[in-house]
Amino acid sequence: MGSGEYSRDQRYLATRITADGRDGYPVEPGRYRLVVSRACPWANRAIIVRRLLGLEDSLSMGVCGPTHDERSWTFDLDPGGRDPVLGIERLQEAYFARIPGYDKGITVPAIVDVPSGKVVTNDFARITLDLSLEWTALHRPGAPRLYPPELRAEIDEVNEVVYRDVNNGVYRAGFAGSQEAYEEAYHRLFDRLDRLSSRLESRRYLVGNTITEADVRLFTTLVRFDAVYHGHFKCNRSKLSEMPVLWAYARDLFQTPGFGDTIDFEQIKQHYYRVHRDINPTGVVPLGPDAGGWLTPHGRDSLGGRPFGDGTPPGVASVSGR
Amino acid sequence: MGSGEYSRDQRYLATRITADGRDGYPVEPGRYRLVVSRACPWANRAIIVRRLLGLEDSLSMGVCGPTHDERSWTFDLDPGGRDPVLGIERLQEAYFARIPGYDKGITVPAIVDVPSGKVVTNDFARITLDLSLEWTALHRPGAPRLYPPELRAEIDEVNEVVYRDVNNGVYRAGFAGSQEAYEEAYHRLFDRLDRLSSRLESRRYLVGNTITEADVRLFTTLVRFDAVYHGHFKCNRSKLSEMPVLWAYARDLFQTPGFGDTIDFEQIKQHYYRVHRDINPTGVVPLGPDAGGWLTPHGRDSLGGRPFGDGTPPGVASVSGR
Repeated sequence: MGSGEYSRDQRYLATRITADGRDGYPVEPGRYRLVVSRACPWANRAIIVRRLLGLEDSLSMGVCGPTHDERSWTFDLDPGGRDPVLGIERLQEAYFARIPGYDKGITVPAIVDVPSGKVVTNDFARITLDLSLEWTALHRPGAPRLYPPELRAEIDEVNEVVYRDVNNGVYRAGFAGSQEAYEEAYHRLFDRLDRLSSRLESRRYLVGNTITEADVRLFTTLVRFDAVYHGHFKCNRSKLSEMPVLWAYARDLFQTPGFGDTIDFEQIKQHYYRVHRDINPTGVVPLGPDAGGWLTPHGRDSLGGRPFGDGTPPGVASVSGR
Repeated sequence: MGSGEYSRDQRYLATRITADGRDGYPVEPGRYRLVVSRACPWANRAIIVRRLLGLEDSLSMGVCGPTHDERSWTFDLDPGGRDPVLGIERLQEAYFARIPGYDKGITVPAIVDVPSGKVVTNDFARITLDLSLEWTALHRPGAPRLYPPELRAEIDEVNEVVYRDVNNGVYRAGFAGSQEAYEEAYHRLFDRLDRLSSRLESRRYLVGNTITEADVRLFTTLVRFDAVYHGHFKCNRSKLSEMPVLWAYARDLFQTPGFGDTIDFEQIKQHYYRVHRDINPTGVVPLGPDAGGWLTPHGRDSLGGRPFGDGTPPGVASVSGR
C-alpha cells in the first residue's frame, strides 16, 4: 500500500442470518431490523435489494440521519431522536449490546436482532447476497433474481473490480493523503468507468439481460457521482452527466422502481459535506448540482433487456420510505 | 454585511502611471515591469490587455509562480528564484521598497517602477483601463479599442455587476464562512450568469460588436470556472461547459489571440488547491477536468461582430510568454 493511501477498515461482524439459522439467527419475518442511512452508498445497496425483493413487511427498516458524530450514526430523524422499534438513540448502542466496548466502525447497513437489540451483521457485501439467497421464503411474488447461480461467476467478477476501482475507488481518491495516492485512484477510477461504459454501450445491464446485484452495486456509486464524488472527492475528469453511456445507464436504473425511489440527494450531500470536515472544514453544503436530469428519457429500452426478467417491478414505495 | 460573508480587502496602492505623469510616474517604454501570476484572475486581465494592445516591448512582465506563502508571491519559476529584472525573490520586497512594513495584501497584478524597485500600483481595476487610456502612444498599430468613450457607460455598468456577482462572487461562494452566506453568493452568481447568457444569446460580445474591457473581465472568471470555481468554490449548479451560450462565448474568446494564449490551467489549479488550505486541507490538486473542449468549434461567428473592430489581432505570443 502506497504512502498516503486510504484504507477501508474491512473487519465486520460477519454473523449471517440464514434460512437454516446455523449462526443462531434464522430468517424470520418481523424479527430483524435493517438500520441504514439514506446518505450511505453501502446501506443504499440493502435498501434497494430489500425493495426489489419485497421484503419491506418482513424486514423493517430504521433510518439514521445523514450526519453523525465521531461515535455513531444517530436516529435524529425520528420523533424524540429515538428509533421507534429498537428504542435507541445511537446505533452504537446496538453494537455495544452485541459486543461491549465494540471499537471498530459503527457502520450502516447493520441488521439488528430486535428481541435482543444486538447487531447481527454489518457485513454490507454479504447482507445483500443473503437477502437474495437466504430470505427467499419471504420474497414477494415476482421478485427478480438478483444473483442467479448461472450468472454468479460473472457477477462476482464484475463486482470485484467495481468495488476496488469505483465503489471504494472514489473514497480512495477523496481521502488520499498524498497527490500520488490521489492520482493513482483517479486513474483507476476513470479507466474502469471507461471500460464499464464500453461494456454497457451495447447491453442494457452489466450481466445478463436483467438487473442483478452487479447493477445495484454500480448504481449506488453512480447516483452519488455528480452530487458528491465529482467535487468533494475530486473525481472530476468529468461529471457522470458528461459520460453519455453511463449517464443513460444510471438514469435507466434510477427510473426503475426500487432504485431512484430510495435516493435522497439532500441527505447524501449533507452527509458527505458536513461529516468529512477533514476535507471540507467549513461544512458548507453545495446547492448544486441540478438533479432534474435524472428523470429525463434515457433511450436504453432500445437495447432490449427486461429489467425484472420473468418477474415484476415492486410496488410503489411507502410515503415514509420505510 | 451578513455573518460569515467573505470580504475582499480593496485598499490598493492607487498611484497611477499616466501620459502626463501627474502622479510622478509618466508612461515610458522600458521603465515599468508588470508583475503577475498566471494563476490569478485579476492579474490575468492585465496580461490579456497588455497582449491585445501590443505593449509587450514597452512594459516587461515578471511572472510569479502559482503558489505563495502567507507573506508573498515569489519568483520561484525564475532561475535562482529571482526576477531577472527586479532582482528580487519575493514581490513583497517591491511593496516594502514603496512603503516600509506595508501590511496590506501583497497582490498581483502590480506594476513596479524598475529604477526605484518600488510598486507604483496594484489597483487591478484601474491598471487595465490605464493601459487602454494612458499608454496609447505605445500601443501597437491595429490595437483594439477596449474602452472607447462612446461605450464607456455601458461597459462600466456591465463591469460593476460582473465584478460583484461573478468575478468576486465566486470568491464569496468559496470563502463563505456560513451556509447562508454561501447560498446567497451562489444564487447571485447563477442568476447573473443566466442573465449574461440571455444577453449573449444574440450578440457576440458583451458591449458593442467588438471585444472590450467587459469581455476581458468576464473571460478571466469563466476560463477558471470548471477548473477551480465549480468544485473548489462550490459553484456547482452546473459547469460552464453545461451552459451552452456562455460556454460558446468563452471558447470564442479563448480562441481569440491574446486570450487563450495567456492561460495555464495547471498553474491555475495549483494555485487555488494548494494555497487555500483552509478549504482544501490536503492540498491535493485535482487532475480534472479535461480541458480539451476549449479548442472545439464555438459557432459564434454567425452572430456577426468583429473581434478587433477596425484593428487587427496581436501577433503570436512569445515562447516564454513574457
